[in-house]
Amino acid sequence: MPTGVAVKDSKVDVLVIGAGPAGLMFAFALARAGVNVRIVDQRPKKVAAGQADGIQPRTAEVFKSYGLSDRLLKEGTQLHVAAFYNPSKSGGIELTDRVPDVTATDTNFPFEVTLHQGAIEAIFLDNMRDMGVEVSRPVVPTSIEVNEALVEDSDAYPVRVVLEHTDSEPEDEEHNEIVHARYVLGADGAHSWVRKSMRIAMEGEQTDYVWGVVDLVPETDLPDVRNKCAIHSNNGSCMIIPREGDKIRLYIQLDGKDVIDASGRVDKSRAGPEMILDVARKTLHPFTIETPQSYDWWTIYIIGQRVAERYSVHDRVFIAGDACHTHSPKAGQGMNASMQDSYNLAWKLAHVLKGTVHRTLLQTYELERRKYAQDLINFDKKFAKLFSGKPHSELNSDGVSHAEFLQAFQTFGGFTSGLGVRYDESLIINSKHQHLAQNVLIGQRLPPRPLLRAADCRPTNLHDLLVSDNRFKLLVFTGDTHDPSQMAKVHDFAQELMAPGSFFAEFSSPEAMRAVFDIVSISSEKKETMMYNALPRILWSHWSKVLVDDIDMRGLTGSGKVYESLGIDTAGAVIAVRPDGYVAAIAPLDGVSHLTDYFANFMKAC
Amino acid sequence: MPTGVAVKDSKVDVLVIGAGPAGLMFAFALARAGVNVRIVDQRPKKVAAGQADGIQPRTAEVFKSYGLSDRLLKEGTQLHVAAFYNPSKSGGIELTDRVPDVTATDTNFPFEVTLHQGAIEAIFLDNMRDMGVEVSRPVVPTSIEVNEALVEDSDAYPVRVVLEHTDSEPEDEEHNEIVHARYVLGADGAHSWVRKSMRIAMEGEQTDYVWGVVDLVPETDLPDVRNKCAIHSNNGSCMIIPREGDKIRLYIQLDGKDVIDASGRVDKSRAGPEMILDVARKTLHPFTIETPQSYDWWTIYIIGQRVAERYSVHDRVFIAGDACHTHSPKAGQGMNASMQDSYNLAWKLAHVLKGTVHRTLLQTYELERRKYAQDLINFDKKFAKLFSGKPHSELNSDGVSHAEFLQAFQTFGGFTSGLGVRYDESLIINSKHQHLAQNVLIGQRLPPRPLLRAADCRPTNLHDLLVSDNRFKLLVFTGDTHDPSQMAKVHDFAQELMAPGSFFAEFSSPEAMRAVFDIVSISSEKKETMMYNALPRILWSHWSKVLVDDIDMRGLTGSGKVYESLGIDTAGAVIAVRPDGYVAAIAPLDGVSHLTDYFANFMKAC
Repeated sequence: MPTGVAVKDSKVDVLVIGAGPAGLMFAFALARAGVNVRIVDQRPKKVAAGQADGIQPRTAEVFKSYGLSDRLLKEGTQLHVAAFYNPSKSGGIELTDRVPDVTATDTNFPFEVTLHQGAIEAIFLDNMRDMGVEVSRPVVPTSIEVNEALVEDSDAYPVRVVLEHTDSEPEDEEHNEIVHARYVLGADGAHSWVRKSMRIAMEGEQTDYVWGVVDLVPETDLPDVRNKCAIHSNNGSCMIIPREGDKIRLYIQLDGKDVIDASGRVDKSRAGPEMILDVARKTLHPFTIETPQSYDWWTIYIIGQRVAERYSVHDRVFIAGDACHTHSPKAGQGMNASMQDSYNLAWKLAHVLKGTVHRTLLQTYELERRKYAQDLINFDKKFAKLFSGKPHSELNSDGVSHAEFLQAFQTFGGFTSGLGVRYDESLIINSKHQHLAQNVLIGQRLPPRPLLRAADCRPTNLHDLLVSDNRFKLLVFTGDTHDPSQMAKVHDFAQELMAPGSFFAEFSSPEAMRAVFDIVSISSEKKETMMYNALPRILWSHWSKVLVDDIDMRGLTGSGKVYESLGIDTAGAVIAVRPDGYVAAIAPLDGVSHLTDYFANFMKAC
Repeated sequence: MPTGVAVKDSKVDVLVIGAGPAGLMFAFALARAGVNVRIVDQRPKKVAAGQADGIQPRTAEVFKSYGLSDRLLKEGTQLHVAAFYNPSKSGGIELTDRVPDVTATDTNFPFEVTLHQGAIEAIFLDNMRDMGVEVSRPVVPTSIEVNEALVEDSDAYPVRVVLEHTDSEPEDEEHNEIVHARYVLGADGAHSWVRKSMRIAMEGEQTDYVWGVVDLVPETDLPDVRNKCAIHSNNGSCMIIPREGDKIRLYIQLDGKDVIDASGRVDKSRAGPEMILDVARKTLHPFTIETPQSYDWWTIYIIGQRVAERYSVHDRVFIAGDACHTHSPKAGQGMNASMQDSYNLAWKLAHVLKGTVHRTLLQTYELERRKYAQDLINFDKKFAKLFSGKPHSELNSDGVSHAEFLQAFQTFGGFTSGLGVRYDESLIINSKHQHLAQNVLIGQRLPPRPLLRAADCRPTNLHDLLVSDNRFKLLVFTGDTHDPSQMAKVHDFAQELMAPGSFFAEFSSPEAMRAVFDIVSISSEKKETMMYNALPRILWSHWSKVLVDDIDMRGLTGSGKVYESLGIDTAGAVIAVRPDGYVAAIAPLDGVSHLTDYFANFMKAC
């Protein structure tokens, strides 16, 4: 910094470095939670085209929990089918199979959505702008220091970051500034400056897989051009991903020797969209694809398969997204994993900043998300091998058969959809009482289920209630409230919940409790007799908070089987769900003490 | 008009007088069709609260066809249940039954939506503003004249209207203006100035039913306060309609002698929301309702049951909505009937103004909508009698029993939902070939059906394709295109469609034809083998225009039964649907001549 210039010096609760999907999801989530957050990015403008584009079912569910899925679905393209093409006897390729693109069934979004990264980012940017948060750009961080003496001090701002505004002259007063942050997130991509500055190493290695990617509006006779296509030919492999409007993306595996220079890096000057399309043409024969008037976007890259050794420094500086993990694009995981990292950390940090939980909660971020990233890399290694292998044929009996590839595609489906992710037992995952709700896997996200609102019989999905409002959800499955003896147990539960000794009774008021907990009651009573206002008042803060597990007025939504499908019996159960939708703990109706044990472990009543 | 002042003098294709639901739907529909339209209203501001509030399923379908239903559903409340309360043995009322509020099943909106008239109007106003059309207000028309010599001249502006801008002084230049219009719509309410100026009489009479209406947020122990309630007590009848947020509307029948003055008019000074609520309390006993801190809106009125003797003058000046028909509010029809009037007329007038149809088409407006209004009044008479009658009891054996009332409620369901409306044979309704699609009733709106898009297996409803873009839809049910002999017939159809002698071949180009016709193909082939691009090119202007009748990838949407449920056999059929979604004509695949006969009757190829 030049001397003699006054340097702006400010404080912020959270500074986010990098405004890609991970950084934007994080800043958005914190802003929505009312946290004082600032976000900076080195690029002068947001991404205009290309880059990541696939939104997996679990990510769509998260968008829904923030009220953002309508726009996602309005702008994005839906992928319902994965079509497989393989060598035909006549020399080219032919259609072998059309199967569901998403094999995991238990979701309200049983499809992938494609939408270019810039449009995804715009959803966050627009919603953040409405809350008064904008990305400062172009801004480059030039130094970061953590004052170790202050990391456990809840009043301190222990992270000092110097930012350079690169669109101003060095002698300008605004050129440099110092930011004192309570917390910093490095969401600054695969070459993360934050990660390097914090001396966090990446573990794993570069592969020798080189991919070319091109986005275009095709003129083609391939009938599956609006489906995801996995094409294995004797002239190479290729993937087609349909995108917004009539656009598609082609992923083509290239021969490394054509495009890698002596230093082992990709040399983009040796390639171009025409070259990628030419390789694709050989794979697609006998189907043809015209040379378009223009290309929307293109790139080539070598795939690394690596995970950061740590995800944080003193739980004050964190990294997320590509800064933590890199892998191949084939299963469409990158942007999803990145946003899920941020989503996992955001609610925890928001609670820490509000003083409602102990700081130790932050340790579960690395615990949960680094394990996930390792699983992702392992999956990627297996899948990449199958995808890049030569197809099976009489001449090549070691080749990958369609049956083998399809089986892998379907086996990995739970993982690639994001729905199968299950967090291990920890400070905030308590595996006790699993038998009370056998199909509600503790550590996994609560599955959606169709229910009815008791007061108006409006079809309402369990997921409609799991809004990302940073509150824990207590789902009270009351059993059949038409049975007086069961109703008596429900009243007992309500009384115990607010009795001395209960964690919940420690809050200063029901309103203070409701700032952290949302209580929803789900009865198995029939809609014809259910009176929502007959439940104890603590179990319905509003008429909309009581549901029944019964068929809807027209029998159209499949409701009426939730107790059964979740494995909850007539005695009922209480399910505690984390703010990010993951099942945290289960208790019987007479088990308020278990809930007390669970929450008192990391939470402070206030 | 004062002399010596320059008066603004302008021309417009369509002038709409009155910016309530009928006028706004009309102006919006015309603006969307690219018609030069102007709309004026005498009120300085739009409605802020109260007034009409019920949107029936057919109206919601129309909103969807314009892309407006998302906002409607986001802002509105859904009514799924009709709850019936009747006298209990202990003296008060008790819950007798909960049944579906909408009895008609074949719709994607199997519920009513309530949203106050101002919010409905805002949907139109905001969308019109995006197209550059705003309501001029406060503006009062002071004279209207039709030049009879010019009514058949397509270049003429035969209607002269003088408008007064009531927020300016009489001596201001802008105070008066003269508008020369090709067409005028009077959507200026029950006391329509246009109707009176055109000397159109109302037929029918005043009833002696007096209703009080009050909107409030209730504090009550009535458990059905979020359902539509029809309450018959020994102390009178009452209806409850849940509304936005926690609000409800109470409809209470009042004793006419309390509120009608000597001239037979309602005297609002004799009533008020407290008085209406007090009457309600007697009906609701033993349930209670607290006096709220404030009332959202209230009114009282006498019900008239009348229909205008004519709906137009020379098919140059039209009336719509309350200007044509008045009736009771109980079945929630008023705003719906008004908007449907406009929706019916708008596409016809847009085509006349574009020169694509003969002017005689306009005669079908009165034919179709006046018949509907007469049916509505007849229904209203029957229903009002049942609703206002004393409940059946041991003391009152002539009273209305619950069974009797429920049966009427359900019998009238098709009518009240708007789905059962069927237009008679006319210039644009041709009842031939009904047997080719037995469950597609010619003259009724085409029902929704779940299908798949062939190119990407995305679940797509037949109604998703019936957008209100002013085009006739030709739905080509191809039969099983996997069968080569059937595919040959499909190719023959496509060839005939564009062969000399066909009406369609008279268009100057396929693009000119597509400006008036949208062709959609629906095959019964399985999704696994269907190649959308194997169909003749005229049958798919875009990959999204080919559908298959097959179960979706997850079997979740109920698709795969459309041919069967519509009564279309393997030979296929062509269904011509009007721009407003009503089934106009049906032809066999080898029946291009029938389509030619139908369209050449009122349409001009250009």
